[in-house]
Amino acid sequence: MEKIESKERRIYFDWAASSPYRITSALADVPFGNPSSQHSEGRAAKLALEDARERCAAVLKVPPETLYFTSGGTESNAIALFSNLTRPGKGRVISSFAEHSSVREGMETLEKMGKPTGRVAVNSAGSVTAETLTKALEKNGDVRFAAIMSVNNETGAVTDITSLTNLIHKKTGDGAPIHFHCDLVQAVGKIPVDISSMEIDSASISAHKISGPRGIGLLYLKKPLGVFYTGGGQEKGIRGGTENTVGAVALAECLEKYAGETVQAEYISAKSRWKKLIIELSKIERFRIIPRERTAEDDRFSPYILQAAFKDIPGEVMARALNDLGFAVSTGSACSSSSPERPVLAAMGIEENLRIEGIRISQGWSTTDEEIDLLICAIAEVLKFL
Amino acid sequence: MEKIESKERRIYFDWAASSPYRITSALADVPFGNPSSQHSEGRAAKLALEDARERCAAVLKVPPETLYFTSGGTESNAIALFSNLTRPGKGRVISSFAEHSSVREGMETLEKMGKPTGRVAVNSAGSVTAETLTKALEKNGDVRFAAIMSVNNETGAVTDITSLTNLIHKKTGDGAPIHFHCDLVQAVGKIPVDISSMEIDSASISAHKISGPRGIGLLYLKKPLGVFYTGGGQEKGIRGGTENTVGAVALAECLEKYAGETVQAEYISAKSRWKKLIIELSKIERFRIIPRERTAEDDRFSPYILQAAFKDIPGEVMARALNDLGFAVSTGSACSSSSPERPVLAAMGIEENLRIEGIRISQGWSTTDEEIDLLICAIAEVLKFL
Repeated sequence: MEKIESKERRIYFDWAASSPYRITSALADVPFGNPSSQHSEGRAAKLALEDARERCAAVLKVPPETLYFTSGGTESNAIALFSNLTRPGKGRVISSFAEHSSVREGMETLEKMGKPTGRVAVNSAGSVTAETLTKALEKNGDVRFAAIMSVNNETGAVTDITSLTNLIHKKTGDGAPIHFHCDLVQAVGKIPVDISSMEIDSASISAHKISGPRGIGLLYLKKPLGVFYTGGGQEKGIRGGTENTVGAVALAECLEKYAGETVQAEYISAKSRWKKLIIELSKIERFRIIPRERTAEDDRFSPYILQAAFKDIPGEVMARALNDLGFAVSTGSACSSSSPERPVLAAMGIEENLRIEGIRISQGWSTTDEEIDLLICAIAEVLKFL
Repeated sequence: MEKIESKERRIYFDWAASSPYRITSALADVPFGNPSSQHSEGRAAKLALEDARERCAAVLKVPPETLYFTSGGTESNAIALFSNLTRPGKGRVISSFAEHSSVREGMETLEKMGKPTGRVAVNSAGSVTAETLTKALEKNGDVRFAAIMSVNNETGAVTDITSLTNLIHKKTGDGAPIHFHCDLVQAVGKIPVDISSMEIDSASISAHKISGPRGIGLLYLKKPLGVFYTGGGQEKGIRGGTENTVGAVALAECLEKYAGETVQAEYISAKSRWKKLIIELSKIERFRIIPRERTAEDDRFSPYILQAAFKDIPGEVMARALNDLGFAVSTGSACSSSSPERPVLAAMGIEENLRIEGIRISQGWSTTDEEIDLLICAIAEVLKFL
């Protein structure tokens, strides 16, 4: 196999795409049996799976029976969205213009299947607000399902989910209930999250964004819901397919490490590094922060993600130049890297040139002040020549 | 975590449910980057993923671009089945009565979505034949998709897929083509399989049945097809979600080990062990083989799976008794262990008492003659008391 190896030290600033693995639980530590089997090997696997579920639940402060293991964030979003196809009647499904491509594409599938849909605007900061949601609900009286993310994967914009669910619960006091689904993939393990107090009906979580393996995630369901496809009936009929016990144990480990009690302290460190990054970048004349209104210490944004632009340098060129100097940054989301259109930035009203120039810088638990310094130096270096 | 540990030696005869892990490639050996990212970490991951795909393709003797990584057999079956929802018109979807629950449940989903469906009978041996398929095609003139498995997961019944695809190609010479999907989960790595000569349009493969990890499988697609849900557009839009690179590398390793050149020799060894098992069991008065017509060396069945019954002992009781003696066997499929109905056996015309008494014994690459001897002794032991 050909290997791309760089001789210099590599510094990774694309944690929002995926993160370096840091898992101590090994394959050999987890019973190999099929958790649905009744023999000792199966029962041992079932115990390991349920133990992992309880550990996840303890970190997330939700009952274990509300957590269903899936293959990742994309599938969790899909199960929630496609539950709408099992609901009789024409109740509308809405989502924000800034959702991850897994939700965006899911909405298109729903549309093709004849489900009425609608979109919720984001403000110039990239968040859904009580105002934009109110407008969407006023426009569409028949909403039964809303999918609105917590932390945007391209800009880091944080939506105050509780303000939205409060609004929905008030609106639907007399009418049919609205199911509120929240994509927490860029939130859990990064910013402090309290699922119970958010009053959401379902949520998606992914392991590989917090140093876990690929192929494992969680779907939180406050109450069980009808699903489009039960497969082999595993996970109480919510997600079919032999349970990924090894993945579940690894996810529990990662949640304990990154989404538990340390998350607040890590958040503060991340904020301090991000403040430094933004202040230093702001000294560069050609730097533009996206959106313009974001400040160095801005609680409306996750301190793990920064969208930045450099005048007259296409994001792709900047990302390539930084890569050559040993730094990994990205342009849009990795999950829609084949599309250069940046629909999330467009929805925020970001001008076309800034959309083209945008790069995403994202940090993680091992990022250091020194790495921030080196990144700033590297950007300055690139700007000398481009 | 509470652990179920048995003091005696455990002997595993439930390989059709899941198999002991045997993977040498470790997490640390596989680049962690997101294969969709453009930086060096992403490109290294992409190279690793494509290398894994090429290795799988080399073993399966198909072009690498026909293989798509999925989360496993259940998802591969679902992607193929639900492609029918993207096809305009009312073309019918048929599957056999003996399919795995992931297909059976998928057919029910299609029905709920208004897709016309139909079923293909199996003969008394549990296989679909040219005759039963002809009848189904005669009954339904509008078939556009057929899902028929290669090796049945409960009985080991092998369907001669080539005879079916020949028939379909002849039938549809003038009419609209019929897509033929084949579940190869219990075939690949067990019996010699030649996808190209089978003339199928799609197939499902799972890693954890051949000592690979959970959460990774393959969908073979002779030609790309429209899918119900593209997610983030990964795997050329066929399967969304960040690619499970580590899983893909592990699957390649398992395919090379178990589905490559050694498969024929292993098949012959398995056959010899199974012949011995069946001959020895046949000496037990209360033993019934399912189906009755299966012989000790019967090429109509996979030598990795045996469905057996013992007069007046419910399968569940026998499985529990054997478990207590250190042997893992199962009753039905693990994937539908919550349902005691055994619809596959019913479709074969197996009488109710035999359905209740049935247990599944399944072997794998590490099974030995000695283990077969011990199993026979254990069964004799159980029969003394029950």
